[in-house]
Amino acid sequence: MSVDVTRLENGFRVATDRMDHVETAAIGVWVGVGARHESPRLNGISHMLEHMAFKGTARRSAEAIVNEVESVGGQINAYTSRENTAYYLRVLADDVPLAVDILADILQHSAFDAGELERERAVILQEIGQCTDTPDDLVFDQFQEAAYPGQALGRSILGTAENVRGLDRAALADYMAIQYGADRMVLAASGKVDHRELVGLAIDAFGGLGALGAPQAEPARYLGGHHGERRELEQLHLVLGYDGLAYDDPDFYTMGALSSLLGGGMSSRLFQEVREKRGLVYSIYTFSTAYRDGGLFGLYAGTGPDEVRELMPVVMEQLAAIGGTVTAEELARVRAQLKSGLLMAMENTRARAERLAQHLLIFGRPIPLAEIVERIDAVDSAAIDRLAAKVFAGAPTLAALGPMGENESVAGWAARASAAE
Amino acid sequence: MSVDVTRLENGFRVATDRMDHVETAAIGVWVGVGARHESPRLNGISHMLEHMAFKGTARRSAEAIVNEVESVGGQINAYTSRENTAYYLRVLADDVPLAVDILADILQHSAFDAGELERERAVILQEIGQCTDTPDDLVFDQFQEAAYPGQALGRSILGTAENVRGLDRAALADYMAIQYGADRMVLAASGKVDHRELVGLAIDAFGGLGALGAPQAEPARYLGGHHGERRELEQLHLVLGYDGLAYDDPDFYTMGALSSLLGGGMSSRLFQEVREKRGLVYSIYTFSTAYRDGGLFGLYAGTGPDEVRELMPVVMEQLAAIGGTVTAEELARVRAQLKSGLLMAMENTRARAERLAQHLLIFGRPIPLAEIVERIDAVDSAAIDRLAAKVFAGAPTLAALGPMGENESVAGWAARASAAE
Repeated sequence: MSVDVTRLENGFRVATDRMDHVETAAIGVWVGVGARHESPRLNGISHMLEHMAFKGTARRSAEAIVNEVESVGGQINAYTSRENTAYYLRVLADDVPLAVDILADILQHSAFDAGELERERAVILQEIGQCTDTPDDLVFDQFQEAAYPGQALGRSILGTAENVRGLDRAALADYMAIQYGADRMVLAASGKVDHRELVGLAIDAFGGLGALGAPQAEPARYLGGHHGERRELEQLHLVLGYDGLAYDDPDFYTMGALSSLLGGGMSSRLFQEVREKRGLVYSIYTFSTAYRDGGLFGLYAGTGPDEVRELMPVVMEQLAAIGGTVTAEELARVRAQLKSGLLMAMENTRARAERLAQHLLIFGRPIPLAEIVERIDAVDSAAIDRLAAKVFAGAPTLAALGPMGENESVAGWAARASAAE
Repeated sequence: MSVDVTRLENGFRVATDRMDHVETAAIGVWVGVGARHESPRLNGISHMLEHMAFKGTARRSAEAIVNEVESVGGQINAYTSRENTAYYLRVLADDVPLAVDILADILQHSAFDAGELERERAVILQEIGQCTDTPDDLVFDQFQEAAYPGQALGRSILGTAENVRGLDRAALADYMAIQYGADRMVLAASGKVDHRELVGLAIDAFGGLGALGAPQAEPARYLGGHHGERRELEQLHLVLGYDGLAYDDPDFYTMGALSSLLGGGMSSRLFQEVREKRGLVYSIYTFSTAYRDGGLFGLYAGTGPDEVRELMPVVMEQLAAIGGTVTAEELARVRAQLKSGLLMAMENTRARAERLAQHLLIFGRPIPLAEIVERIDAVDSAAIDRLAAKVFAGAPTLAALGPMGENESVAGWAARASAAE
């Protein structure tokens, strides 16, 4: 592995994963702060801060930020998740110093101009509208809230429209001052980058930032539940899930294998049974989401209002049928899928930079590929059986959005999902 | 460039773009046949054929096809566009022979089993439902139909539900026999592949396929028009467009520059004016779609029912304001964006294989990167002015889906879009 990590005195980490045969670099700052660190009143502020980072600094107007990047053919973007906020660029190798300068500027010297803030509120309200209009996005927010009711981890990343209308400059500046500590940040780069050069740039650009210790977050308390919304749509959009595993769980890769086995590809059990053998869906897939503490395992299916009656029992059957049925062939297949997925991601600068940053934020060290491969190879069918039994014995969470018959209810399906155990 | 092309006796082409520093390969067959080659009665058959290719062959069951690929950690997928149908895999280097064997099998020996066909109809009907539920997908189908009314190029790729219910085994087998000629196919691979080895495999696997000459298609006759659908949504989803350029148009890269200038990034004029200065949208971007003859230039915006009154005139103003206003800085920026976009795509095996296949289908030869860079550098502001004047003088096409006020209509906006010239 070509990975180097340096920790500055203030706790800010610089990590590079050099690739000698590309001409570009992916570079960004991953901050270990996101929607789960927000109080109810501040829900949406991490995401609003991410937007406002692009709206001007002491030295640069909003337009100057994107002009400087795009005039050299670079790209800049950002995202907010429940545990992280990321700001990243893709640039030609020569423009890495520019990228660091811009990252440092937008993360430390945001102007929070009043006029820009008003306009950006309107943009975020449009973003919320877009999410609301996209049923297979919205149903995931409804699922998250049902899984972690009344908790920060259950709230949406975009926040409520009311909060977006109300958050002011002082709240944003305070939140940044309280949350954006040097020791919660990783500057990660992959591609044509030189580690020593990047460390030099980082010392100048981020060396003056203070440390804040680990961010506060209420522990994840998965409760489960259900949420249904009748809407005139062609499809009923369903997310069914269970309590999952944290990043550092010894069974983390067993969960990956279970997810892959059930819904990770076209050969997976759910895809075969629900789509290929019965034609009940176009899309069905599983997901496994990990947090620092806890996680979610679940599946999405988009089906018709008539087809759902056949789909729900079939899905429950498939979940219940894991124990004692995982064949050697299936095990070999899911291992191969997990390992080749890793290898393929290694060909992408952005994916490598992101993985490196995540490893540092979560584990405090880069995890070598060989170590992950070893853990994947150690997954056996007994471990999958044990994990499936544990996961599916827990309380289910069900979110459904779309057309539903008069006599059908999400509560009824959820009850049957519980009773299936 | 590390590109090699070999034409077999039957006109089947094999093309490789070797990358020495990766461990995987992207490989697929691109067929120069798509939705625009369909009669109204057969609309949707290219896409249905693409689905049925995965549903079993003389030698393999549907499950065996995906099992063989995924058990070695590979991925297989396909798509249908208006001019092409593509079947492609991503595999470890050692599995290239398996990939060729599977591609050859599904493209020449499809079983079209009756039971599989019935189930796949249901899957495609769900896919149509999913598209209908996704406003920013559906509005593009409505735009396409308004731009090319009554023509194959205006019809949806998925086809009508009625057609999907009615197409039978004989229609599929006939369509494949009539359309899938060796001389309409390119086997393209990028990554860790050896050209001579691939040619050897292709001779064995595709050497017996007959040639069919160029496929028949009615010429693209852009007419323009408008289509509005009131729907209870948060956002009004708008696509506004004009007659565009074919792949072989001398102004092809001028169009790329015009598109980039107007809506190709965060520094683009529409993004700056509509989102950054006015906060009217979350998403706004331009697109330039080319066909063998003709093309489309347009923009998408997702806005609110109140904001649309301000948005439409601002957008029209921006389109009308190109002439004489393109600065040297803007020109340098869009050139840099186009060139770095090319360079970044070169780092991706899938993107390289796809581009190589497209060049062979459209131009009959791979286009060297240097040639494209030269054409981008030749774009000047006078050419952009000329092209903008020509494009925006033509009849507009407007599709709108979402909430609209009582006194507002898509016809009215379209009339104002025309009158703006």
